[in-house]
Amino acid sequence: MATGEPATPLGGHSHSDTVRLEALSDGVIAVAITLLVLDLKVPHVGDGSLWNALVAQWPAYAAYITSFLVIGILWVNHHSLFRQIRYAPRGLMLTNLTLLMLIVAIPFVTSLAADYLTESGINAKVAMAAYNALSLAIAITMTVLWGYALRRPELLEPDVDVDAARKAFPRFSIGSTVYAVLILVSFVSALLALAGTFLVALYYAFEHLPKTHPVER
Amino acid sequence: MATGEPATPLGGHSHSDTVRLEALSDGVIAVAITLLVLDLKVPHVGDGSLWNALVAQWPAYAAYITSFLVIGILWVNHHSLFRQIRYAPRGLMLTNLTLLMLIVAIPFVTSLAADYLTESGINAKVAMAAYNALSLAIAITMTVLWGYALRRPELLEPDVDVDAARKAFPRFSIGSTVYAVLILVSFVSALLALAGTFLVALYYAFEHLPKTHPVER
Amino acid sequence: MATGEPATPLGGHSHSDTVRLEALSDGVIAVAITLLVLDLKVPHVGDGSLWNALVAQWPAYAAYITSFLVIGILWVNHHSLFRQIRYAPRGLMLTNLTLLMLIVAIPFVTSLAADYLTESGINAKVAMAAYNALSLAIAITMTVLWGYALRRPELLEPDVDVDAARKAFPRFSIGSTVYAVLILVSFVSALLALAGTFLVALYYAFEHLPKTHPVER
Amino acid sequence: MATGEPATPLGGHSHSDTVRLEALSDGVIAVAITLLVLDLKVPHVGDGSLWNALVAQWPAYAAYITSFLVIGILWVNHHSLFRQIRYAPRGLMLTNLTLLMLIVAIPFVTSLAADYLTESGINAKVAMAAYNALSLAIAITMTVLWGYALRRPELLEPDVDVDAARKAFPRFSIGSTVYAVLILVSFVSALLALAGTFLVALYYAFEHLPKTHPVER
Repeated sequence: MATGEPATPLGGHSHSDTVRLEALSDGVIAVAITLLVLDLKVPHVGDGSLWNALVAQWPAYAAYITSFLVIGILWVNHHSLFRQIRYAPRGLMLTNLTLLMLIVAIPFVTSLAADYLTESGINAKVAMAAYNALSLAIAITMTVLWGYALRRPELLEPDVDVDAARKAFPRFSIGSTVYAVLILVSFVSALLALAGTFLVALYYAFEHLPKTHPVER
Repeated sequence: MATGEPATPLGGHSHSDTVRLEALSDGVIAVAITLLVLDLKVPHVGDGSLWNALVAQWPAYAAYITSFLVIGILWVNHHSLFRQIRYAPRGLMLTNLTLLMLIVAIPFVTSLAADYLTESGINAKVAMAAYNALSLAIAITMTVLWGYALRRPELLEPDVDVDAARKAFPRFSIGSTVYAVLILVSFVSALLALAGTFLVALYYAFEHLPKTHPVER
Repeated sequence: MATGEPATPLGGHSHSDTVRLEALSDGVIAVAITLLVLDLKVPHVGDGSLWNALVAQWPAYAAYITSFLVIGILWVNHHSLFRQIRYAPRGLMLTNLTLLMLIVAIPFVTSLAADYLTESGINAKVAMAAYNALSLAIAITMTVLWGYALRRPELLEPDVDVDAARKAFPRFSIGSTVYAVLILVSFVSALLALAGTFLVALYYAFEHLPKTHPVER
Repeated sequence: MATGEPATPLGGHSHSDTVRLEALSDGVIAVAITLLVLDLKVPHVGDGSLWNALVAQWPAYAAYITSFLVIGILWVNHHSLFRQIRYAPRGLMLTNLTLLMLIVAIPFVTSLAADYLTESGINAKVAMAAYNALSLAIAITMTVLWGYALRRPELLEPDVDVDAARKAFPRFSIGSTVYAVLILVSFVSALLALAGTFLVALYYAFEHLPKTHPVER
C-alpha cells in the first residue's frame, strides 16, 4: 500500500484472477470465432458448375459474416466491461463462464441458420428464431454480469464513474429487447431477421458502447 | 536477491516455466471447451419439423452444458493450484501434460454421452460410465499433481500455508470417490449419472475449493 | 507524464487496446493456421494401396503448405504493422476484425483448391480464382488498415518515421495487384496459379516487408 | 543501456519478436494438441455393444496418447530452445514456421495411424512410416533451427554457454536418426513402431533435454 498499490478487498491474488479470466475468455472467443469457418463447406458438384454451387451457398457466407461481426463485437464489449472490473469473485466467474458457454454455441446456430435460411416454410423461421434466442440469452447474461459488478463497486477499477454507469445501466439493459423483437421478426421472415441481426451488430459496433461506458469516452 | 527477488532453488529460469506452463494449459483448456460446440449438430429433417428435431436433441444440450461447466470448473481449480506453485520441474510438467491429455478427451466422452444417453439398454450406461471414468482419472491426476507439489514445499509460493494445505489434502483427495460412485450410478441410470455429474460440478463451483485452498480465503 | 510515459491522446486505456487486439489477432491466426490440418483427410482405400492414395493427395499437401506459408507471412506482417501502431480506435478495430474474418476463411478456400485442383475443366480454375480473390481482399484490407493509421500519426508509435512510411505506402499498396494478376492466371492454369501464390508468399517472406517498414531495418 | 538493458544488435524491437513468436508457437501447439481429440470418434453400433466397440478402438487411444506425449514434449523442447534465443531474424522465423507446419500435421498422421494400425498387410506399415517420417522431418527442422542459432551467438541469451551448447550439438542432432530407424521398424511391424515412438517420447521427456541444454541444469 505504501508503494501506491491499492489494497485488495477480496484477497491477495484477486487481480490476477481477472487477468487469467480475460485470457481464458479471449482464448475461447478466438477459437469460437475461428470455428465459424467450419460452416463454410466445399460443395461437391461432380460435373456441375462449382461457380453456381459457390453462389448458391450465399446464406452460409451471410451467416458467416454476421456471426463473425457478432462475436467480434461481443469480444469488444466483453473487453470494455472487464477493463472496468478489477476483481472477479466466484459468482462473477460463473456468470462469465455462462456467457462463454452461450458465445461458444454461436457457430452452432450459425450453421443452423445457414442450412435452413433459404428453405420455404416454418423451418427457416425456427432456425433464425433459435439464432436470436441465443443472442437474447447472451445479451441478458452480459446485463446480469455488468449489473452484478455495478452492485458491488469494490469490484470495479477506481477510475470507473459508478453513478454514471448506474444511470446508463437501463439503456444498456434494454439492448436485450432488440433480440426479443428479432425473434418475432424471424417468424415473419428469416431473411429479414438475419439482416436485422447484422444491422444490430453494426449499430453496436459504432454507436452503443461509447454511450453506456463513459470510461471509454 | 538484493532487489527482494527470492532465490530460485531449481535454476534461473524456473519461474518462467510456470508462466508458459499456465499459458499452454490455458490455451489447451480454452480450445477443448470450445470444441464442445462440435457436439451440437445441425439436424437434417427434410420436410419434417426442425423444432421437433431441435427439441429431440436435448441430451446433446444437457451434455454440452454439463461438460462446459466441468471444464470451466477444472480451469478454475487448475488456476487455483498453479497460483500456489512457483516452480515446475519435469515430473510436474509431465503430470500436468497427463492432466491436459485427459481434459482434452472430455469433448469425446461428451459426444459419446450425448449420442447414447436416451438409448435403452446397456449402451447408455456404458457411455455415462466412460464419461465418469474419465472424470475420475482427471480427479486422481489432479490429486497426484497437488500431492507432488505438497511433498516439495520449495516448489510452492512462499505465502502458501503448507501445513494447512497438507491437512486439507485428504478432503481434497476424497473428492475423487464421488466420481467412482458416479460410475456405479451410471449402471443404475445414465440420466441420473448425468444429473449427478452436473450437480457435482456445481457443488465444486460454489463450495469445495475455498475450503481446500486456504490461500484463497 | 513525469515518469516519461507519453500522454495517451485517445483516453487512458487505449494502449491496452492494442495489446488485447494483438492477443485476439494472434489467437485467431493461430487457430486458423492450425485448422488447415483438417483439410488433410485420411484416405479410405479398403484393399487398395494406402501409399498410392497418399501420393494422389498431393494437391492437398501443396495447398496445405502454401496456405500455412500465406497465413504465417500474414501473421508476420500483421505483427509488423501493429508494432508500429500505438492506439486502436473503433474504426481500426473493425478494419482489423474484417481482416481476421478474411484470414479465417483461408482454410475454406484451401480446402476448395485442394479438392478441385486436379480436376479438368473450369471448376479447378474457379477454385483457384476464389483462393486468390480472398488473397486480394486480404491485401486490400491490410492496405486500408495501414493507410488508416498513416493518416492519423497520433495512432503510431513515436519511433515510426511517418514520412518514410508514407513514401513507401504506394509500394505497399501495389502488392495487391499481384493477387489480381493471380486471379487472371487461375483462368489460364489452376496449378500455375497455386505455384504463383506459393512464390509470392515466399517473396513476401524474404523481400517485401523490410523495404516497406523502415522501422525494421 | 545505462539502465542495464543490453543493446539489441538487430534493431530496437527484436526482443518482442521472440515473445510474440513464442506466443504464436504456443497457440498453434495448444490447438494442434487439442485437435487430437477429433481422432477419437464416437462409434455407432446400433444394437451392438458400445463397450466392445470402444475397446476395439484401442489403436485410436494408443495413437492419441502417443501423439499427445509427442506434441507435449515438442512443446517443452521448443520452449527450452527459445528460452535461450534472444532475437529471431527472418530466417529463424521461417524455420520456426516450417517447424509449426510439421507439428500441426501430427493430428493427420495420428488419424492415419489410428485408422490403419490393426489392418494386416502393407497399409498399416505405410501409415506408421508416414507418422515417423513426419517425426523425422520435425527432428531435422528443430536441429536446423538450433544450429542456425548456435552459428550466430548474438541471437542467444547472454547466459547461454555457447561452447558447451556447440559441443552438445552432435548429440542433439543424432536424435534424428532414431526416427529414421523407426521408419524402418514400421516396415517390420506397425505396432512395434508405435510402441517405439511412445518410448522415444518418454525417453526425451525424462532424459535427453537436460543433457543437451546445459542452461537447464
